[in-house]
Amino acid sequence: MLKKGELVSFRPDIRVVDCTVRDGGLVNNFFFTDEFVKDLYNANIKSGIDYMEFGYKASKDQFDESKFGKWKFCNDDDIRAIVGDNDTGLKISVMADVGRTDFRNDIIDKANSPIDMVRVATYINTIPSALEMVEYCHKKGYETTINIMAVSKSNDIDLDDALELIGRSCVDTIYIVDSYGSLYPEQMRRLAEKYLNIADKYNKHIGIHAHNNQQLAFANTIETLTMGVSYLDSTVSSLGRGAGNCPTELLLGFLKNPKYHISPLLTFIEKHIVKLREEGLVWGYDIPYLLTGRLNQHPRDAIQFTKEHRTDYKAFYHFLYDKEC
Amino acid sequence: MLKKGELVSFRPDIRVVDCTVRDGGLVNNFFFTDEFVKDLYNANIKSGIDYMEFGYKASKDQFDESKFGKWKFCNDDDIRAIVGDNDTGLKISVMADVGRTDFRNDIIDKANSPIDMVRVATYINTIPSALEMVEYCHKKGYETTINIMAVSKSNDIDLDDALELIGRSCVDTIYIVDSYGSLYPEQMRRLAEKYLNIADKYNKHIGIHAHNNQQLAFANTIETLTMGVSYLDSTVSSLGRGAGNCPTELLLGFLKNPKYHISPLLTFIEKHIVKLREEGLVWGYDIPYLLTGRLNQHPRDAIQFTKEHRTDYKAFYHFLYDKEC
Repeated sequence: MLKKGELVSFRPDIRVVDCTVRDGGLVNNFFFTDEFVKDLYNANIKSGIDYMEFGYKASKDQFDESKFGKWKFCNDDDIRAIVGDNDTGLKISVMADVGRTDFRNDIIDKANSPIDMVRVATYINTIPSALEMVEYCHKKGYETTINIMAVSKSNDIDLDDALELIGRSCVDTIYIVDSYGSLYPEQMRRLAEKYLNIADKYNKHIGIHAHNNQQLAFANTIETLTMGVSYLDSTVSSLGRGAGNCPTELLLGFLKNPKYHISPLLTFIEKHIVKLREEGLVWGYDIPYLLTGRLNQHPRDAIQFTKEHRTDYKAFYHFLYDKEC
Repeated sequence: MLKKGELVSFRPDIRVVDCTVRDGGLVNNFFFTDEFVKDLYNANIKSGIDYMEFGYKASKDQFDESKFGKWKFCNDDDIRAIVGDNDTGLKISVMADVGRTDFRNDIIDKANSPIDMVRVATYINTIPSALEMVEYCHKKGYETTINIMAVSKSNDIDLDDALELIGRSCVDTIYIVDSYGSLYPEQMRRLAEKYLNIADKYNKHIGIHAHNNQQLAFANTIETLTMGVSYLDSTVSSLGRGAGNCPTELLLGFLKNPKYHISPLLTFIEKHIVKLREEGLVWGYDIPYLLTGRLNQHPRDAIQFTKEHRTDYKAFYHFLYDKEC
């Protein structure tokens, strides 16, 4: 097995990418207060986080602006209202879904934007479109990533072909994404080995975006990190769609680089996360997500089940199981 | 790295040990209803679970029977009232703490008892007393285990010596116990390798008892299982002290032996676990447990913090941190 670094040292190539507003926005339609986002921005700076993803660059043709909070669209001006000139060590990231972004209109020259990195989320069958977006963003001056979603549904040959294609592009970082939270550490390590081989060949970084359906988001993140994966997605207190993500506070507890500090995040959690839960926002590991994760299914049925406050887990399991047949 | 079995096959040597009442009893002082225990017993049988641990054989001299539910003491008659002659595939286990059990009085001949296995919990400095208990129980006809607690606080030389000593005894199974939920998979694998070497040398089984302070109980269990660890402790919905344990429903989702079924457990969760939570019983992963786990500390301060409904995580972290200095 590949191994980089030991438990007592640290790897300077590690980058922690805070996705709290972006993935958490899928829980509350991006209706975060400015105070939440501003406090998170400041907590991230103090905690030594490397990137903060503010949300999506979603197409305003396709999505009604009145139905979502501003971080679904991430206008440069809205970001600037939070970060000013962002004269800090924290870089700014946005996500752009293939087919759901007017990138030629909405992504301007990096020189005039507070954004540092554009992450392109794609399924394996839309890689050519993803590459077109990456080329465009790269020329505009941005760092870029390609995040291949739902990789647990792809077959090995398609994935090998896709990684070769991406390897030859100008993209900086390629992400392993466990969209359904269905992958065990053993499988994650096999995937990481595959991605890291491409990274070595084409001089790329590899990232991981894990979901917590089977309480494995943190484990999968640190297991692949020790192999050489270096871009680590996490969210404060797991805030994110369905079972949520790798919790930043757990991840910072593992990382040994003295630049990372957990205290500012704990203060943020006290002030904001406790309140979100009290207000009734629900996310994080629970039985319905374990069941969709185990069956390698999209979490949408589990999200609906949870929203309806149902607890008839056995019936739900058999409903999901029957869908597979 | 050692490797036994693949993800698509199953290992017939695997034994799942349900510790819900025993470890869960540490949350509610063992005040489970008979209906809870009886339903769990039946669910375990239907789910294919291999052992059910009913509780402790605690000394009635040392503990006031009026202050605890009956499963702190596990009278043979109380077990029999649930299981009758236990004419099933599910074996019955109890735990006996070194120094807290009147084993010569309370553990009778196996021939007259519904109990199949006695698990002796010991710290590394009381191994000789543990071995005395194991010899006694072995002669009485029971299967035995030694569970070395708080192994994350032991040094390697002491542990090697302890394992050699235990290896030469008549004990059947030796347990890795991550009492504080502080160990990462990489460390767990190193420990498992050490224990498995002793198992090979002396023909023993190795077990794992993980805690979920860092959301690693399931990951650590399946990682060491793939190396050859075969006795797997878990509890329904993680019910157990502090951050709880490896959730049985996650573990059964991973195991491929067709004898294991998740549905009966889901029914049990619907009926009993949902109710326990509604009644206000609190357990499972949360920030305070992450902090004690990360600092390799006993969870008692985190349990108290949680009981007081506090959310001043930063102050709590600094309190814990200062204790280390």
